[in-house]
Amino acid sequence: MQRSIIFLLSLAVLVVSYGCQAQPAAAPMMVEKQSFSFENFTTVSGEVIPEVTVGWESYGELNAAKDNVILITHFFSGNSHAAGKYSPDDPLPGYWDSIIGPGKAIDTNKYFVISSDTLVNAFPNDPNVITTGPASINPETGKPYGLDFPVVTIRDFVEVQHELLTSLGIHKLHAVVGASMGSLQALEWSVAYPDMVERMISVIGAGAMDAWTIMALEHWARPIRHDPNWNNGDYYDAEPPLTGVTSTLAMITQQAMHPVIMNMRAPKPEVMSEQALASVTNSTPVLDYLFANSRVRAPLADGNHLLYLVRANQLFVAGHEGDLATGLAKVKAKTLFLPATNDLLLQPYLAKRAVAELEKQGKQPAYAEIEGIWGHLDGLFSIPSQADTIEDFLAH
Amino acid sequence: MQRSIIFLLSLAVLVVSYGCQAQPAAAPMMVEKQSFSFENFTTVSGEVIPEVTVGWESYGELNAAKDNVILITHFFSGNSHAAGKYSPDDPLPGYWDSIIGPGKAIDTNKYFVISSDTLVNAFPNDPNVITTGPASINPETGKPYGLDFPVVTIRDFVEVQHELLTSLGIHKLHAVVGASMGSLQALEWSVAYPDMVERMISVIGAGAMDAWTIMALEHWARPIRHDPNWNNGDYYDAEPPLTGVTSTLAMITQQAMHPVIMNMRAPKPEVMSEQALASVTNSTPVLDYLFANSRVRAPLADGNHLLYLVRANQLFVAGHEGDLATGLAKVKAKTLFLPATNDLLLQPYLAKRAVAELEKQGKQPAYAEIEGIWGHLDGLFSIPSQADTIEDFLAH
Repeated sequence: MQRSIIFLLSLAVLVVSYGCQAQPAAAPMMVEKQSFSFENFTTVSGEVIPEVTVGWESYGELNAAKDNVILITHFFSGNSHAAGKYSPDDPLPGYWDSIIGPGKAIDTNKYFVISSDTLVNAFPNDPNVITTGPASINPETGKPYGLDFPVVTIRDFVEVQHELLTSLGIHKLHAVVGASMGSLQALEWSVAYPDMVERMISVIGAGAMDAWTIMALEHWARPIRHDPNWNNGDYYDAEPPLTGVTSTLAMITQQAMHPVIMNMRAPKPEVMSEQALASVTNSTPVLDYLFANSRVRAPLADGNHLLYLVRANQLFVAGHEGDLATGLAKVKAKTLFLPATNDLLLQPYLAKRAVAELEKQGKQPAYAEIEGIWGHLDGLFSIPSQADTIEDFLAH
Repeated sequence: MQRSIIFLLSLAVLVVSYGCQAQPAAAPMMVEKQSFSFENFTTVSGEVIPEVTVGWESYGELNAAKDNVILITHFFSGNSHAAGKYSPDDPLPGYWDSIIGPGKAIDTNKYFVISSDTLVNAFPNDPNVITTGPASINPETGKPYGLDFPVVTIRDFVEVQHELLTSLGIHKLHAVVGASMGSLQALEWSVAYPDMVERMISVIGAGAMDAWTIMALEHWARPIRHDPNWNNGDYYDAEPPLTGVTSTLAMITQQAMHPVIMNMRAPKPEVMSEQALASVTNSTPVLDYLFANSRVRAPLADGNHLLYLVRANQLFVAGHEGDLATGLAKVKAKTLFLPATNDLLLQPYLAKRAVAELEKQGKQPAYAEIEGIWGHLDGLFSIPSQADTIEDFLAH
């Protein structure tokens, strides 16, 4: 478990260390993973999942009126661990600990901050993740669903979160905030439940997937589907498609990082490497650097879950009906869009399109760009640069 | 054969049509593919290839002094067909026909323009390509080399071209010009044969591969290596790894295009597609658009050749010794770098690094950026915007 946390967040070490030096040391916020289950969930596609279980965690206290709630929705390879530590010995806190906590931009002295693991989470074998997806046991057969699990959408992720909040008696969201795939959920929340969501912050996000990004996502699926161990999704009694999953995770890592930061961190390319010249299948220190991390994370991931996540993202358009304008017409929340200038994965034009459409509809979306050298990952690691913007947006 | 040309150049139709309208109609320049063979080629890695055969073609006339030669070096998925048509019925001419021909920027009334197919060309099954690589028959065994073919480098491509030029009595290059992988060869020429190369034009190019790009190239190799038909490179008596090759070609196509042009040309993403919701393995019109083209081209390609090309590009640093500075120190040619502003594959920072190093060495590299909406492919389709720059550079 420690090892998984180290590798999942290894990229953050430098930045987080810097952040810690810049602020007075404080005892880490302690959090506990909890579990929520409900029955007979009907998906957008019209299928019924007999039992859904997802993990969740929260920071801060729910007030008596239950109106101080901020929901955090997580990114593709993330989970509900947005802040704090499970144990004082954890090497790193949750991914947005720099902006979530007492006195921070998302102030847990004021707000009850809650986050849940999505359906079909990428890393169901991570002991800190609780999710329902193709790797889960189908109660009707007693075996893992595999590809019998229904295709799910970002809207389905939202509906599961709505069930969780309802079970806690929460009927109003002060804000919903998410990065990357989390931004899709955040926006979908404000379309699906316009009277419930007061504020929406989309970080490194989009209002709808475009053809280029749908294609880019498809490349993430291919190494898994080509791996013979994938066996059309039926591998739970055999060797899982770890080679394909490793290639997919490596692709995601490289594409989420800008060349500037990757070239700073990776080994210098070797000149006339004997090993690389001996065979096209030999690795090199640069490739070892990328793949070693992915190889360690691969057993915690699930090939089918990754395919389902790819599809959920490919299908996204806010509202899931008509077009982007139709969906955004329902939004009543105040909105803030924070793409990253150097993002090569979900480039700022995607956020700009949603902003332009909202403006066309007479709404007043706020917009700022996160500067940084991390590329897509600036949405995680350079978010402190927008802490004041977020704090102000939440206060008004 | 016609079909292959249509698909290889299908992306160019709009732009080339526009170019044709803008200029007075002229009879197409007719060209003929020729073949060059020589024996016992020693590669950079120290291996000997008993027989090398590559295709080549030329436009314009070699003068008596044999000093009016411009060498064109081709890109990753290209070949020596840089201009003209093989037959009046050809739907499209060679890829840089907009700048190579009588009265054009690279004026075949003045210059003898020559281009050759590289070793390990990506499309050895294209009837217009003549190359030597893993799919070629090893004369020592009478069977295809497979992975017994030695790893080759950009310098090896240059050495084969040098053999060809020497066989024609050519010992001076007025210029060497190449796009993308062709730019690596062009720069390598000016390092390897500094007294032979008078001018060098690098289009959408680099002086050395960086870690980020080496990783990006590795993703192109993975779908092929994961395809069970690849069989560790030994498939010439069986089914080739067409599924993997198709995925690789689709990835290259998508990454070589900027979102603006891709989104203009691809179908609009479907909302709540029943097919896409029915299974994560079902396709969608957007994915069909990308993969249909790659599926048709895949049988003309060779999986091993693609892996060898990936490796040749991964290993590139100008001069192949020490570092970029060591290599560039040997350059005596006048140089011109033309990256594309919106290139997401070989981004302008790569050309800028080479330019900065040359300047540091007291040289005077010229630099301009190609503007356009094609991304990496602006190096092919938006090159007419730099026609005057190229013509001037060649004239002085």
